[in-house]
Amino acid sequence: MITVEEASKIIQSKIRSFGVEHVSLMEAHGRTLKETICADQDFPPFNRVCMDGIAVSASSFEKGLRTFTIEGIQAAGSPQLVKKGIDSCIEVMTGAVLPEGADVVIPYEQVDLENGKATVSITSVKHMQNVHLKGKDKKKGDVLINEDTQITAAEIGVLATVGKSAIKVAKQPTVVIISTGDELVEVHEIPLAHQIRRSNVYSLQSLLLALGITAETRHIGDDKSSLSNEIESCFEQYDVLLFSGAVSKGKFDFIPEVLDNLGVKKLFHKVKQRPGKPFWFGELQAANGGRQATVFAFPGNPVSTYVNCLQYFYPWYKASIGVEVKKEYAVLKEDISFKPQMTYFLQVKLEQNQGEIEAAPVTGNGSGDLANLVKADAFLILPMEQTEFKKGNVFPILRYRSF
Amino acid sequence: MITVEEASKIIQSKIRSFGVEHVSLMEAHGRTLKETICADQDFPPFNRVCMDGIAVSASSFEKGLRTFTIEGIQAAGSPQLVKKGIDSCIEVMTGAVLPEGADVVIPYEQVDLENGKATVSITSVKHMQNVHLKGKDKKKGDVLINEDTQITAAEIGVLATVGKSAIKVAKQPTVVIISTGDELVEVHEIPLAHQIRRSNVYSLQSLLLALGITAETRHIGDDKSSLSNEIESCFEQYDVLLFSGAVSKGKFDFIPEVLDNLGVKKLFHKVKQRPGKPFWFGELQAANGGRQATVFAFPGNPVSTYVNCLQYFYPWYKASIGVEVKKEYAVLKEDISFKPQMTYFLQVKLEQNQGEIEAAPVTGNGSGDLANLVKADAFLILPMEQTEFKKGNVFPILRYRSF
Repeated sequence: MITVEEASKIIQSKIRSFGVEHVSLMEAHGRTLKETICADQDFPPFNRVCMDGIAVSASSFEKGLRTFTIEGIQAAGSPQLVKKGIDSCIEVMTGAVLPEGADVVIPYEQVDLENGKATVSITSVKHMQNVHLKGKDKKKGDVLINEDTQITAAEIGVLATVGKSAIKVAKQPTVVIISTGDELVEVHEIPLAHQIRRSNVYSLQSLLLALGITAETRHIGDDKSSLSNEIESCFEQYDVLLFSGAVSKGKFDFIPEVLDNLGVKKLFHKVKQRPGKPFWFGELQAANGGRQATVFAFPGNPVSTYVNCLQYFYPWYKASIGVEVKKEYAVLKEDISFKPQMTYFLQVKLEQNQGEIEAAPVTGNGSGDLANLVKADAFLILPMEQTEFKKGNVFPILRYRSF
Repeated sequence: MITVEEASKIIQSKIRSFGVEHVSLMEAHGRTLKETICADQDFPPFNRVCMDGIAVSASSFEKGLRTFTIEGIQAAGSPQLVKKGIDSCIEVMTGAVLPEGADVVIPYEQVDLENGKATVSITSVKHMQNVHLKGKDKKKGDVLINEDTQITAAEIGVLATVGKSAIKVAKQPTVVIISTGDELVEVHEIPLAHQIRRSNVYSLQSLLLALGITAETRHIGDDKSSLSNEIESCFEQYDVLLFSGAVSKGKFDFIPEVLDNLGVKKLFHKVKQRPGKPFWFGELQAANGGRQATVFAFPGNPVSTYVNCLQYFYPWYKASIGVEVKKEYAVLKEDISFKPQMTYFLQVKLEQNQGEIEAAPVTGNGSGDLANLVKADAFLILPMEQTEFKKGNVFPILRYRSF
């Protein structure tokens, strides 16, 4: 059995590219940028007025002039006016071009307007005051957004500003989530005494939706030939297959055998972790015009499936599309003892305390206790090498809920 | 001019309900639950086998029996079998019902199977070992998810388990984002020397999309009668109007006047904050069969619009749909001085350090510098009462990017 670190390393060695595509501006929200965005012109593109007021020339002011004849109004969106007289000014609006012949903007708060004249009450001005200078933020050609950035509202604004209406982003993988097990019935059905409703596929679908991936789901009964046929047809359509269940020692745990028969190379089976020990990972290599497929076969217990998706699928996906994987950490709030020689994913509720993230254990009834996930926000990753975990120590977290 | 705290208090006094609706399971992802979810049966609904192995009775084991005749296989999803003989066992699979007459599950790892018999190598057993007891996690009728919970993958799994295929959630508000200003051209257009592309509406649209709100956008020229007509038609269709620009002292800053003429009650105009001072907030009360509308008129500078949406619209929306608003905090990483008597929204890059969130200032060129938002992750809220902010002190943040 391999460790969590070994399993993660193997999975990270199997990252893939799913290609790129062009999407519209708003479709780019949440996606990963696959081009470098440069300024198409100076930012701002002209000497931009940034207070409503009057524009004068500093030299007139310095000669002692305090009252100026208003020559006109420079509105935002109007072509640049020319200030002609030495003793004149132009009213200027925020966002407007600074008129030619002016190099100072005095805000209305410091101006009295009367009979077509503006009188100012200040004693000094600075050259280009209240003017956002052409090219001050960025010069034409400067890099504004690096490739591989995740696109938030901040990037959307910049993309719009530089005129990108089609954005090159990482394509999402095509994913199918497959449940197996004759005990499962559909959500709208009433289970018999020995049955339960299908839920793991929907948790997984939702975990993937949080990454912007719209996955499909299938259910296959506990029968080798159906499994084999259905899985083979999935290989024709999907980049990634996620399974939930049928990977342990049970008489009907056919997944590893069926995958092996279909030519999927097992990269490991079983990891020193709780929950989620029987996790199986493998890869179908592209051959004879066939597609490549990556297979994550998670154990069927709800909490096992859930934590394995966060611990293994999430970083594999992020690395595949080129996003930097950053670990988050939290401070353990209670002493915890865990004797088995395996990594323990402890369910925790996160709290804020003076800029610090604290993790309070949430006691559940083991890997079958789906309802407990509702009370928690994250898993704290307690390393295999220790058995006693002290209050105040810091550990990485797998988070599925934000504040 | 009022303070940020006063402005927030007024806005929070104007929260509204947008009603509820029923959506499908996967559509519920990210939404806010508007019903209490209870267990429709015990969890687990039967004594559930949680290891693959054999089921025996503890009393037989205690009488010294170590070899058991295999009577059959209890698969997951099959009706409960009855173990008949005293010296017999039934093979059981994870997820199966514990057979009647058995009260102990011994995993395959501790069993030798040969010629239809199972011999165990252990010396003691515990009553109901490796059995997830009926009702252990939850009893029928127990509350599983509280109303007003934000639905993540954890809740989706529970909703599926209890058979909810139509989920009652908070309806989203209908929102229109309106830009004004003759200097603005569309994203696909090449701006003339005095023009810039429309970008704030898209930043806002993306900030709202992050809340699951699909907002529409409009552009209206700097003309009072068009503004009046178009805004009036928006009141017929939308719960919320967001404006960007035309709320300051400029000659064409018609928004406050037009809104006033349309009967929108101004609740405040201008807040002691940087950036975003000219923010205008008001409400149109429902009258004569008309709709109620809430109006956030943000200043037009990109960073002002952005931070005001996070500071004012976000908490108003969350409180309106019933979600608890939790503040996040970070530790300032450098000394900062800010003299004006106003709240300062400092752009910061967030970093993790031993479970602590640190905020490193990102220097920009003021409220017009949209590109700077790309380098930052959040705004640190530096209170008006202070002018010197020391490294190591903790302040609330407005975050728009996760780790």
